[in-house]
Amino acid sequence: MRRADPPAGGWGADGGADEARVEGVDARDIYRARNRLANVARHTPLTRADWLSREVGIEVHLKLECWQRTHSFKLRGAVNAVGALRPDQRRHGLVTASAGNHGQALALAARQYATTATVFVPSDAPATKKARIRAYGASLREVEGGYDDAAREAVAFADRTGATYVHAFSDPAVVAGQGTVGLEIVEDLPGVRTVVVPVGGGGLAAGVGVALRALTGGRTALLGVQSTATRAMHAAFEAGRVVPTPLVPTLCDGLAGDVEDRSYRAARSVLRSMHLVEEAAVAPAIRALYDKEGVVAEGSGAVGVAAALTGALPLEDPTVIVVSGGNLDMKTLARILAGD
Amino acid sequence: MRRADPPAGGWGADGGADEARVEGVDARDIYRARNRLANVARHTPLTRADWLSREVGIEVHLKLECWQRTHSFKLRGAVNAVGALRPDQRRHGLVTASAGNHGQALALAARQYATTATVFVPSDAPATKKARIRAYGASLREVEGGYDDAAREAVAFADRTGATYVHAFSDPAVVAGQGTVGLEIVEDLPGVRTVVVPVGGGGLAAGVGVALRALTGGRTALLGVQSTATRAMHAAFEAGRVVPTPLVPTLCDGLAGDVEDRSYRAARSVLRSMHLVEEAAVAPAIRALYDKEGVVAEGSGAVGVAAALTGALPLEDPTVIVVSGGNLDMKTLARILAGD
Repeated sequence: MRRADPPAGGWGADGGADEARVEGVDARDIYRARNRLANVARHTPLTRADWLSREVGIEVHLKLECWQRTHSFKLRGAVNAVGALRPDQRRHGLVTASAGNHGQALALAARQYATTATVFVPSDAPATKKARIRAYGASLREVEGGYDDAAREAVAFADRTGATYVHAFSDPAVVAGQGTVGLEIVEDLPGVRTVVVPVGGGGLAAGVGVALRALTGGRTALLGVQSTATRAMHAAFEAGRVVPTPLVPTLCDGLAGDVEDRSYRAARSVLRSMHLVEEAAVAPAIRALYDKEGVVAEGSGAVGVAAALTGALPLEDPTVIVVSGGNLDMKTLARILAGD
Repeated sequence: MRRADPPAGGWGADGGADEARVEGVDARDIYRARNRLANVARHTPLTRADWLSREVGIEVHLKLECWQRTHSFKLRGAVNAVGALRPDQRRHGLVTASAGNHGQALALAARQYATTATVFVPSDAPATKKARIRAYGASLREVEGGYDDAAREAVAFADRTGATYVHAFSDPAVVAGQGTVGLEIVEDLPGVRTVVVPVGGGGLAAGVGVALRALTGGRTALLGVQSTATRAMHAAFEAGRVVPTPLVPTLCDGLAGDVEDRSYRAARSVLRSMHLVEEAAVAPAIRALYDKEGVVAEGSGAVGVAAALTGALPLEDPTVIVVSGGNLDMKTLARILAGD
């Protein structure tokens, strides 16, 4: 478990921790997003986890975004981004690159707005995610390599066809959509002192960070978590700038891939600290979440719980951990539950 | 797949299908129950299942009571029943017999009303259910035999200690609580034509039946489903009276056990027909629910989907299938998902 604080002077780069606007997103954008999401996304449960509270020694609640439609918070950002487009921007279809969850979200958002979606995914993305992207009616394109390779292909496709590219995390409308997770947390638990989010590209962290700053005035600390196999943001926090990270096998496929300057700046301005949890601790957290809570989380969704269980997170009472997604291959889940 | 219609003249025994009151419960009781449940139970999602709609040929929605707190609809009835007691009736604690889900529900309801609960379960109840009953703070007593044996012990305990017995399905306040499932279905899908419910003791069927009759005026047909290994209500429909049924191993532990005269009369007055699905078809339905919908259902919760997939249910468009619970042992789920 390793922690990286923002580099000295880091806050200043974005106007300081009191700045309500992060990379073009403020609380009004998040409320607007909520209106767009009203009949599409679910207000997901916030559930007190007694077993985890006992383990950690303070009251811990889980925000079950794994029970969101499409089984991840990504729906919020995608629907808000597609809803914010002009009709002529939707006319030639939408395209994106995705580790899988944003792809499902965009597929459903496209259907909602009566247009088409093309989703480029790494060919080793989980079978469940690929199947569900197709099931929501999108055209699926598999790309050798990682998320970044899929992103290059998606950009080329957009240039070639006139489709509108909806970025998975650095689009302000996507960030505003993810911020609705933060609104719901504060509404359901106004006294929340710590919120823990998984960090991949950083869109969830940025959105939730803006919401917390606006609604709790900085009283709530936001902590980011990645696994040791998906450490791009953590590495950027340590180096004080975006640095390339190697692509390694991981159960946290949703957190893999590099970050961008813009996302790094946003994350740095909202996160109190970034934390790493051992990749090997993720499967036991998935097991515990099913065994104790009856909740299926994917690896990316379970890193916050895995990190809390190590005892190394600076949590205050009460804490909310976002379980961000639940798209886990049937065979992978069977293997993890069997304890193999 | 076998179907049993109500015996000829059966409706008349309860005053006919137009009678709004079933065994002491009417729509006002259900609305009152909803007020009691407001801050305890979740309004669970109703989700359109595209894959199942394609299989069946009409629009099918799933009511996800497996995502209810305590992972089953039983919470609704238990909280309403405990809330309806006078304080002096709660003072000496509560007791019940349960296949597992009502026990968890009563344990949580007892905590909500600051009293204690003792739950008698068959000793072969799933480990997950027993663990969760304890985790909610109830005292667990295991009894050799089936649900009916546990019920005898629970009644003796109530006599001995002065604890109040909260029956799993034939208490009018429990039925009214379960009826809130019906309210939510009609609110979320006002044009619903068929609702399919799993039937064990018949409390869910009775409650949902009262709600549908009040809100849709008989335009919506209610169908009941059991597995071939849990056929007590189906056997009663065939015989025209309650008949003893053998206790056999089943994945649908929540539906096992005999029915009572009162529950049989209530079920007969609200169900258009009772259906049996092969016990062997239940595990594949659990698998499909996870694979296609990312939903973990226990056997009892999956019988409606299993029956729909046989093509033998007389479903009208649109149909809602209640997935009534999701408390499935980790090892059992692992085995089913692995396809063993």
